[in-house]
Amino acid sequence: MNKPEIGIGLVGSGFMGRCHANAFRAVSGLFDVPGEPRLEMLADASDDLAARAAQALGFARGTGDWQALVADDAVDIVAITAPNVLHAPIAHAAIKAGKTVYCEKPLSTTAALALEMTEAAEAAGVVTLVGFNFLRNPMIKLAREIIASGDIGEVTGFRGRHAENYMADPDVPHSFRTDPRGGGALADIGSHIISMARYLLGPMAEVQADCRTIHATRPTAPGATERAPVEVDDMTHALIRFESGVSGSLEANWAATARTMDLSWEITGTKGALAFSQEQMNELQLWSGTAGRSGYTRIEAGPAHPPYGAFCPAPGHHLGFNDLKVIEVAELLAAHAGGPACTPDFREAYEVQSTVEAMQKSNASRGWISL
Amino acid sequence: MNKPEIGIGLVGSGFMGRCHANAFRAVSGLFDVPGEPRLEMLADASDDLAARAAQALGFARGTGDWQALVADDAVDIVAITAPNVLHAPIAHAAIKAGKTVYCEKPLSTTAALALEMTEAAEAAGVVTLVGFNFLRNPMIKLAREIIASGDIGEVTGFRGRHAENYMADPDVPHSFRTDPRGGGALADIGSHIISMARYLLGPMAEVQADCRTIHATRPTAPGATERAPVEVDDMTHALIRFESGVSGSLEANWAATARTMDLSWEITGTKGALAFSQEQMNELQLWSGTAGRSGYTRIEAGPAHPPYGAFCPAPGHHLGFNDLKVIEVAELLAAHAGGPACTPDFREAYEVQSTVEAMQKSNASRGWISL
Amino acid sequence: MNKPEIGIGLVGSGFMGRCHANAFRAVSGLFDVPGEPRLEMLADASDDLAARAAQALGFARGTGDWQALVADDAVDIVAITAPNVLHAPIAHAAIKAGKTVYCEKPLSTTAALALEMTEAAEAAGVVTLVGFNFLRNPMIKLAREIIASGDIGEVTGFRGRHAENYMADPDVPHSFRTDPRGGGALADIGSHIISMARYLLGPMAEVQADCRTIHATRPTAPGATERAPVEVDDMTHALIRFESGVSGSLEANWAATARTMDLSWEITGTKGALAFSQEQMNELQLWSGTAGRSGYTRIEAGPAHPPYGAFCPAPGHHLGFNDLKVIEVAELLAAHAGGPACTPDFREAYEVQSTVEAMQKSNASRGWISL
Amino acid sequence: MNKPEIGIGLVGSGFMGRCHANAFRAVSGLFDVPGEPRLEMLADASDDLAARAAQALGFARGTGDWQALVADDAVDIVAITAPNVLHAPIAHAAIKAGKTVYCEKPLSTTAALALEMTEAAEAAGVVTLVGFNFLRNPMIKLAREIIASGDIGEVTGFRGRHAENYMADPDVPHSFRTDPRGGGALADIGSHIISMARYLLGPMAEVQADCRTIHATRPTAPGATERAPVEVDDMTHALIRFESGVSGSLEANWAATARTMDLSWEITGTKGALAFSQEQMNELQLWSGTAGRSGYTRIEAGPAHPPYGAFCPAPGHHLGFNDLKVIEVAELLAAHAGGPACTPDFREAYEVQSTVEAMQKSNASRGWISL
Repeated sequence: MNKPEIGIGLVGSGFMGRCHANAFRAVSGLFDVPGEPRLEMLADASDDLAARAAQALGFARGTGDWQALVADDAVDIVAITAPNVLHAPIAHAAIKAGKTVYCEKPLSTTAALALEMTEAAEAAGVVTLVGFNFLRNPMIKLAREIIASGDIGEVTGFRGRHAENYMADPDVPHSFRTDPRGGGALADIGSHIISMARYLLGPMAEVQADCRTIHATRPTAPGATERAPVEVDDMTHALIRFESGVSGSLEANWAATARTMDLSWEITGTKGALAFSQEQMNELQLWSGTAGRSGYTRIEAGPAHPPYGAFCPAPGHHLGFNDLKVIEVAELLAAHAGGPACTPDFREAYEVQSTVEAMQKSNASRGWISL
Repeated sequence: MNKPEIGIGLVGSGFMGRCHANAFRAVSGLFDVPGEPRLEMLADASDDLAARAAQALGFARGTGDWQALVADDAVDIVAITAPNVLHAPIAHAAIKAGKTVYCEKPLSTTAALALEMTEAAEAAGVVTLVGFNFLRNPMIKLAREIIASGDIGEVTGFRGRHAENYMADPDVPHSFRTDPRGGGALADIGSHIISMARYLLGPMAEVQADCRTIHATRPTAPGATERAPVEVDDMTHALIRFESGVSGSLEANWAATARTMDLSWEITGTKGALAFSQEQMNELQLWSGTAGRSGYTRIEAGPAHPPYGAFCPAPGHHLGFNDLKVIEVAELLAAHAGGPACTPDFREAYEVQSTVEAMQKSNASRGWISL
Repeated sequence: MNKPEIGIGLVGSGFMGRCHANAFRAVSGLFDVPGEPRLEMLADASDDLAARAAQALGFARGTGDWQALVADDAVDIVAITAPNVLHAPIAHAAIKAGKTVYCEKPLSTTAALALEMTEAAEAAGVVTLVGFNFLRNPMIKLAREIIASGDIGEVTGFRGRHAENYMADPDVPHSFRTDPRGGGALADIGSHIISMARYLLGPMAEVQADCRTIHATRPTAPGATERAPVEVDDMTHALIRFESGVSGSLEANWAATARTMDLSWEITGTKGALAFSQEQMNELQLWSGTAGRSGYTRIEAGPAHPPYGAFCPAPGHHLGFNDLKVIEVAELLAAHAGGPACTPDFREAYEVQSTVEAMQKSNASRGWISL
Repeated sequence: MNKPEIGIGLVGSGFMGRCHANAFRAVSGLFDVPGEPRLEMLADASDDLAARAAQALGFARGTGDWQALVADDAVDIVAITAPNVLHAPIAHAAIKAGKTVYCEKPLSTTAALALEMTEAAEAAGVVTLVGFNFLRNPMIKLAREIIASGDIGEVTGFRGRHAENYMADPDVPHSFRTDPRGGGALADIGSHIISMARYLLGPMAEVQADCRTIHATRPTAPGATERAPVEVDDMTHALIRFESGVSGSLEANWAATARTMDLSWEITGTKGALAFSQEQMNELQLWSGTAGRSGYTRIEAGPAHPPYGAFCPAPGHHLGFNDLKVIEVAELLAAHAGGPACTPDFREAYEVQSTVEAMQKSNASRGWISL
């Protein structure tokens, strides 16, 4: 008995579009998904661009008109990897058409727009998922389970960071990343550590951030000699109070010269602690105390940590970044077919974006902001 | 213009068969391959098993007769993941049919049989590749380049190891792994560190090994209470002299309780050194000496280390084990289409197997053996 | 020709008093000091206690009257390891007597008192040194030199922490540590990371801290069942702007369950970065970028990093905590004999204490405080 | 009540002589020793040299005649840090005089001479101690206790190494280190990993080594242009069978470019494992297996690991190399005063030297040698 096919429509064909395509292609070889994804249609800025991208990424059809894609009956899931300013209109159209919507982060350019999208999706009852892929790591799920189990006691402190160096060079030009509508280090990668903090410790109650623009100007375009002012942060440090009472801090920094993927944190509890860094994404450090033998234990990802076993039956065979996207797509397909709701949905992505904006406001007002 | 299709015939559908299938599915989304792999046919122990496996892994057809698969005109590449004892007959048939042959390690159950396969393949002029997938790591290619560049000076010493714990429990039953025809820790995983040592430092001239069976008996089958003697090694330590004069040691150990994938080595040169462990597969340690600032530098995999960029345009997004298999398949397809020869071919795999057997002989004779 | 003797008077004989005594005993065997320390006199709470401590620590005489010690002609250097509330009166008396003063941190119970001590010492022209011993690490000196050299470019960010677990247990009783006059995690160990940040990056301009008391009550005394409220912080997170424009954050936490000595930081510059943790006190991580080979280099302490060579002529023989105190004493003796001024002197210790108080005020006012 | 004094006579004033002197000076401030060491007399190559060294190191008297020192009634313990060829005559004289003898390693230039010294000491009943200082590390004692407790099950494998780079440069001249009487990497530092392996796992039964001279010639003296052949090994790899049946390997390498103190090992048992490196001398890695949470735990040295507490009452304050020598001296003084016998005594040091010689013989004969 063959599984039903699920038609995938992808809007956008950049780095993330390619990630989506590859994940949809790979997923049924690794997971027992409820349907076989069929790469049905790809939309891009023009028919021509779309046709070429469709062929390169293995889609059956291409179109320069994303509205045609959203409306197409053969498309069951709309995957949005288009520029941030297009997320809202595409998502609204897809929601109206009753499609499952899979959107890259940030959900939109403002929290207000993200809230409208969220409410529309909830009213329509469609399945939504936003691509905070680092949450898919089996080690992160394990961390959440350990916290929930009480094995580290009551959580007291959080210290987190997402630091990379892709904007460290002052000659990296302006792009959507430096667009004040959704851009900046805090919005771009701070959102990852915020989403992970929420996933592990729940909502934040109050924040106070210090945002800083390190490079005052950048070239207006790749190769341009003309420079324009930068209006977004390169580096933000923030204080946090969670609703649970836990206090902590986080940093978002895309000019961290020495770092390529320091999405890392330590969570301290009254009886133990956990530590993680995406730079060693197949490891979780768990501290437990036995007289004379206490210390951090380096737990290595393995079949005991679902869904690692979907990729390999033995421990020690590490997962990579692209595998996280495959896990994301597997959870999306399950939810699409009526399985458990996947997270982060639009609501959760809106909450992350609200937190980013609260931090930005606290920077402007130089005081704490309640969420 | 569409690329030509390349028909894949897979014999075997266990863990490694599944790896092959997934890699062939994924490769054209990641690499600019000369042809699109078409999952044409899968052979297994019976028609029924094969039909089910074909569907699960995405192959068009299944067959209980591997000879039919090898002979099928729609099959261009024969991928062998069947039990070790079948490697030789399948490969010989595929070579006779002029097919490209992609075989899992070990090439055969004895070096003598491996040599026959090698000579047949060379006489027929077919493309061959043996699945020593850890060699595909961009960090290993980088290590080889650094050694060749002379940046660490003249190499003086090697210290290597492949240690895992999958046979540490004395109640793990007998299987093909404990079959004296190709089994044992040295043959099973020692072959990986031997192939890597050869890839980096060239052939060995003399060896002296000490093989030890830790668990004298194992259950005859999964769940069996009856136990039978073990005739293969659980742990081997060996001394090595390379043809270049470099001396060193290696360990193969599948009862290394604390290790899941310690495929690791340090290579010392007169001016620097390199160190690697598969447990941190996205890192290479390079030592260089500057007065007061010498030390190991942790180089992290990134787009500067091909073919990392095929997976991700930014550093810090780690590759995983399954990605190595995709790289292997990309190199295979290129060679199949007339591109550069891929390595390790049958000849190289035979040399690895010869080295394993020389170590086993040196253990028996309690003296050095020249290769 | 024998060196002159330098008479040492020690007030206090707890853990730190013992450290001082041992450092004075050891220093001339390791450093070419200008004079041989003579353990002349020890003062404690009573004549009897002092006599016993003097014998245990190798001092010639004991006294229950610290004023007698300060006034004694045979005492050239007054070392203060008494309770914090006594630092001011002892130091003022020693300054008045023209003695060199070596005081443990914090300099006093308030910044105002610390300023009075500073001004008295400066007016009298006496040599002062405050025991921020972690600054004595050769790796910290190396870090400072690298920053000053411009090798990491212009500094852009700081992320620091001092986290230990000695107060993690809610049943650790009240003591001088929880006395609001100078107590709390921020004052007790936050002062170390503040002093180190200042040593490396200069003064801070503005701060905003969030102080939290995790354990609301503690036993009134060791073994007591009665509990009293805790008025000081167990954990503080703070935002920082340095005068140079560098921004960053720090954490002080004495309830960090998993940490024993995480006095650590990362300093990012436009061209490189440095990272350090006291948990690997013999290492400094230096990031430098070479295409395809960039990464952190682990520099290990060795003779190239003075005064490491005073302890051992070869690299790899690690220094320990007590060695840092010996280095401190060697610098003190040199300054006492007219050599280069040692740091941190009272002025610098006052600045650290001012910074601590500014952070406490910012916590109370819930806003930024300028220094 | 004052403790009795114990007169120390030191022969030799190089790096190790200085270490001894400093340890004797420091020990009573840190340990509750049965007597106060009195630095009584130092012997060196001439009266003049000895007088200067005595003053620099704090000894009361100097002499050019070590026989006078050995015979002096005020000398209770004879500490030997003289050139290796002098160990035997000095030790025999000290034994004859009934003195406690504290000798640096190697005990003598041949195992035969070492055995004579051992038998003489045993016949005379004097206390002896040989300076394998790395054994004094509290983490090594902890490792031994864990192994003895059975917590890692039955030991199955050993993999050890002592690698440094002090002879990596071919222009490091000849010295006592390259003298075939006791020289070479195996004798010089291989003896440390052999002594540690014996301390943890007991005696070896059979060995097979491969010794290699990397640099065929070296300058005859510091700064000399003339070069002479090198007759000792720069690097040795060896296979080992312990009496217990455990098998393993070790490496001794003083031309390991990237290493300053890689005295390291992993010991695997049927239920767990231990790992250590002197490069992180305040840590012991202990692997234990709990489903889904197994891994190496990094145990950090602290007061739970005697005699760490003698140096510091809190964990996280690391010990350094020189502290190990203080521990050694504390154990020596206790044994001198009739306390528990200290180890390694002459007998144990002879066994280490025998093992070194067996490895050298196995290299010459190219076969296994039984001990």
